[in-house]
Amino acid sequence: MNTFGQQFRISLFGESHGPAVGVVIDGIPAGIPLSVEDFEADLARRKGGSVGTTPRREEDTPEILSGLYKGFTTGAPMAILFRNCDTRSEDYTPLANTPRPGHADWVAAHKFGGFNDPRGAGHFSGRLTLPLVAAGVVAKKLLPEVCIKAHIAEIGGESESHKWKDMVASVAAEGDSLGGVVECRVVGLPAGCGAPFFDSLESVIAHLLFAIPGVRGVEFGDGFRAARMRGSEHNDPIVAPDGTTSRNGAGGINGGISNGNPLVVRVAVKPTSSIALTQHTLNVATGTVEPLSIGGRHDSCIALRAAVVVEAAVAIALADQR
Amino acid sequence: MNTFGQQFRISLFGESHGPAVGVVIDGIPAGIPLSVEDFEADLARRKGGSVGTTPRREEDTPEILSGLYKGFTTGAPMAILFRNCDTRSEDYTPLANTPRPGHADWVAAHKFGGFNDPRGAGHFSGRLTLPLVAAGVVAKKLLPEVCIKAHIAEIGGESESHKWKDMVASVAAEGDSLGGVVECRVVGLPAGCGAPFFDSLESVIAHLLFAIPGVRGVEFGDGFRAARMRGSEHNDPIVAPDGTTSRNGAGGINGGISNGNPLVVRVAVKPTSSIALTQHTLNVATGTVEPLSIGGRHDSCIALRAAVVVEAAVAIALADQR
Amino acid sequence: MNTFGQQFRISLFGESHGPAVGVVIDGIPAGIPLSVEDFEADLARRKGGSVGTTPRREEDTPEILSGLYKGFTTGAPMAILFRNCDTRSEDYTPLANTPRPGHADWVAAHKFGGFNDPRGAGHFSGRLTLPLVAAGVVAKKLLPEVCIKAHIAEIGGESESHKWKDMVASVAAEGDSLGGVVECRVVGLPAGCGAPFFDSLESVIAHLLFAIPGVRGVEFGDGFRAARMRGSEHNDPIVAPDGTTSRNGAGGINGGISNGNPLVVRVAVKPTSSIALTQHTLNVATGTVEPLSIGGRHDSCIALRAAVVVEAAVAIALADQR
Amino acid sequence: MNTFGQQFRISLFGESHGPAVGVVIDGIPAGIPLSVEDFEADLARRKGGSVGTTPRREEDTPEILSGLYKGFTTGAPMAILFRNCDTRSEDYTPLANTPRPGHADWVAAHKFGGFNDPRGAGHFSGRLTLPLVAAGVVAKKLLPEVCIKAHIAEIGGESESHKWKDMVASVAAEGDSLGGVVECRVVGLPAGCGAPFFDSLESVIAHLLFAIPGVRGVEFGDGFRAARMRGSEHNDPIVAPDGTTSRNGAGGINGGISNGNPLVVRVAVKPTSSIALTQHTLNVATGTVEPLSIGGRHDSCIALRAAVVVEAAVAIALADQR
Repeated sequence: MNTFGQQFRISLFGESHGPAVGVVIDGIPAGIPLSVEDFEADLARRKGGSVGTTPRREEDTPEILSGLYKGFTTGAPMAILFRNCDTRSEDYTPLANTPRPGHADWVAAHKFGGFNDPRGAGHFSGRLTLPLVAAGVVAKKLLPEVCIKAHIAEIGGESESHKWKDMVASVAAEGDSLGGVVECRVVGLPAGCGAPFFDSLESVIAHLLFAIPGVRGVEFGDGFRAARMRGSEHNDPIVAPDGTTSRNGAGGINGGISNGNPLVVRVAVKPTSSIALTQHTLNVATGTVEPLSIGGRHDSCIALRAAVVVEAAVAIALADQR
Repeated sequence: MNTFGQQFRISLFGESHGPAVGVVIDGIPAGIPLSVEDFEADLARRKGGSVGTTPRREEDTPEILSGLYKGFTTGAPMAILFRNCDTRSEDYTPLANTPRPGHADWVAAHKFGGFNDPRGAGHFSGRLTLPLVAAGVVAKKLLPEVCIKAHIAEIGGESESHKWKDMVASVAAEGDSLGGVVECRVVGLPAGCGAPFFDSLESVIAHLLFAIPGVRGVEFGDGFRAARMRGSEHNDPIVAPDGTTSRNGAGGINGGISNGNPLVVRVAVKPTSSIALTQHTLNVATGTVEPLSIGGRHDSCIALRAAVVVEAAVAIALADQR
Repeated sequence: MNTFGQQFRISLFGESHGPAVGVVIDGIPAGIPLSVEDFEADLARRKGGSVGTTPRREEDTPEILSGLYKGFTTGAPMAILFRNCDTRSEDYTPLANTPRPGHADWVAAHKFGGFNDPRGAGHFSGRLTLPLVAAGVVAKKLLPEVCIKAHIAEIGGESESHKWKDMVASVAAEGDSLGGVVECRVVGLPAGCGAPFFDSLESVIAHLLFAIPGVRGVEFGDGFRAARMRGSEHNDPIVAPDGTTSRNGAGGINGGISNGNPLVVRVAVKPTSSIALTQHTLNVATGTVEPLSIGGRHDSCIALRAAVVVEAAVAIALADQR
Repeated sequence: MNTFGQQFRISLFGESHGPAVGVVIDGIPAGIPLSVEDFEADLARRKGGSVGTTPRREEDTPEILSGLYKGFTTGAPMAILFRNCDTRSEDYTPLANTPRPGHADWVAAHKFGGFNDPRGAGHFSGRLTLPLVAAGVVAKKLLPEVCIKAHIAEIGGESESHKWKDMVASVAAEGDSLGGVVECRVVGLPAGCGAPFFDSLESVIAHLLFAIPGVRGVEFGDGFRAARMRGSEHNDPIVAPDGTTSRNGAGGINGGISNGNPLVVRVAVKPTSSIALTQHTLNVATGTVEPLSIGGRHDSCIALRAAVVVEAAVAIALADQR
């Protein structure tokens, strides 16, 4: 299902090359000031245009259809729409019989009996992260005391950011793509948020993060490194009555519940699947494996645009657990 | 909430040193043969006793209270109860004012205003994985054509299993603990299981895996390594009409949907938090930081018992998405 | 929340005088032929215009934003939008301080701190039944073998339909309004649909029916008359191997599960709350009770338009339980 | 599914003649004083023994397995168990081939392929209202300021209570049974509880009421009478700043939201299906319709025991919407 959340519930819809993508958000308290301008900064962060990101350009102006009256939220569900304008479906026509490696083409056709909209990955498109980011903007408004910031931690295994631009340009020139790691830190989250087991903060946040196309891994605090540590290294000594710990290997969460320290989560983003370099895939019409080179307009490093999406996912999870 | 699932829904309850722990499972189809014996193998895998695992011994015999009639499931909810027998709550009394680093003691007291049952971590105890494993046994019965197998991939960063016993014994003798990595592989899962976005297989499986106490990270297929790969390396060429790929960097999932290849997920398990080595923590009564050495009976490497729990979590997720 | 359903999930949004009302429908199987024309008949049944119904006219043409491709459903969520065109908000301005008896004006302002959109009852408007009817059209498409038909059983206590037109005209001329009873019959529903307790067919259907503005009562089969019957009268003798009963006092449901006989449910619809006749209400600005006469365009008998809405609600419930 | 609720979530389990019936309750705040004695009054009200009610006697002492520590709720889920003691399954053996009219026997066997536990109606038994009443006791504890009281309004169409005893005795002597109407009034519920559409108070309350075996109708305020009233009669004039109305035809709810006036709901309970009088039903083994007289121990008027069950259902609904 394309719905998430109990207190703050979002319902995504849309296809990459259909009339629109959008989201319905339910559970927004009444009386929160909100305007179309509030979306600009995050939507701009997500937008393509720089090196390594897609040259496709959309206005990406949110149309708020409901739930807002005289500049304040009303308590009723908010529907936000983004019209698709700059679609070039013909780019995808030649691929009809050759499911792209790394993409959902084959599973979508299999699961939906060939009735899925295949243009630009249809409902599986990264374009669906647009309404997700919009929902994240609203979620952050519900958490004014909480600072949620995601940043790129690595591109292609390189953590020094000044090297990324050249790396990406060089790989893009080869017709290849790069992955990356995004880290999100949440400061100001009160202790006591979350619950043991199935509403653990890790469960809920990871649920949303793995809903983002291209995410391969999620870790909290010391993450996978914890598996290689000793208890005496990994444990976080509690040093103050407010729960402050002298290190933060748990990433701000114990027993599924926030402990008042910064929440730290890292997300592995795969390299863009669409590459110009020749790959091989099955031609489902002929049953033979044949070479494939993907044209069209694509990011060569989706991780570069992922920070704001990760931020949105974390914000939505926290808004739902507030 | 302690409930998970839409089609196959489980509700956990119990505390480590209360009368019992258990689970109610709803959504089991009628007519599946099931007996108490079916639980034995998995419960034995989870049970303590070997090096590095807790000397606490429980009978751990499931009492099936409902949903079973003449050896077959009835279609009604199945309640499974495990009485707690071998509880030594006095082990925990000295810790009342000193929340243990790495444990939920502090957050539980904070969130529940001191009303939580603190004995043996109460509802936050790893003992709750017992009914989870029981639910996993039932879940696997619903997926007879699917083979779900988890194994330990690393202990303390070491992947050669013949070295683990000595490592764990040596670290335990020091009063310290070790973490590990568990890998779960699912073979025979049909293509088409899961959905894009919030019911993505990764989302649902990770949701359950992060509900297991002590899990710090979850990754699928190439996982975090994918973030350091190029698209031409990470992409899985499709080579047969049934969706078979010549490599499996996606871990058997595209667009949130199983693609018919083996599903591969890895889980980072932290080192046991309870260690005999001296740590420091706050004395909440005095407000001072003081040394702490934890006695009682504890695993020095919970990862050693985690494989069957991971297996159960994956099985429950798949039973819910079937 | 404005979301309903697990298998067939709908999310309503919109306000009476905002830009649009609409619905996102998730869980639609792929491959169902659907067009804008399929909505015409039911939307026309719901539309105002005849005696006793509102003279407000909307085009009410559904705009399908997603989930449909080349005339077939895709398996992705379908967003359906209805723009609001013919809104005359000024009709409502004089009422700002005088909550209308029988309406949600007072509770909405109370619950949402005055931030609710008050124009034309905002999100509480009967106009939200428009996307509900649209969702019902889609729901019926999922149940091609099932015939769901609702009809008006009573208007103002009168069950002979040829008298209704004059009754309603006469009451409308007095500035008053009438209630009615709608009966819905479902034929062809297979036995076995539903479940005991919280997913009982009665529970799920009644949940949706009571979501319709103005519904005061719901009864199945013999309904309230059953409370005045003896067991020997009310029981339905089973007379054939397919579960056929010789009477149908249970309304086609036993133990929450369809028994293969026609499902029969009746719904009490209150008289329209907005009336021209002088009523009394509180002026919240002055704190005094004062007379109120409601102008604007209103149905004098919403029950006349309710049959198709009841039909939609029942269809949605059954689509979710299929 | 046998689970209900988002904030206050209950999961029912058990069969009439299995080892036990019970409930797991999640979402109970920590720190509420609770003891086994708190359940006594309501369980006694539900218990059989008087004229017209079953002579089956159970101890019906709740065993609280979790979620309670030192006399206070802990914030963890509470499992409550009732062992079944006085079961006489042999009473039911002769009925194996003759599904009882008005019961779920036929649908249960049909839906669950004959694997359902048929003894004493199994999971469909009215005995499941025992854990429901227990959950109601806990729910009321969460709403200390709210007074929820249900009473019998009619038995066999007679509203004067002093006549009921003789009526029921006389009908029971004939081997027949009677239905009744239960009314529940809630005083002290603050305005603002509930929401428009799918979480309307009517929807949520009716959902739970129709989960009670034997309920045929639910109405709020004027209920079905509203369908025969004019707007000028049915509307409730608002007469005070706190939302007080001078009549209460809406039953305390507008737009799905409590308006601060007493919430009034009425429930039609069918006559007991099990009667000694000869009925007819299908013999599924022979395929012929044959006479049936039901022995065993049964209420001749389940409505007499239903008030506390209705009260529990309403309390659970309100605890979930608080």
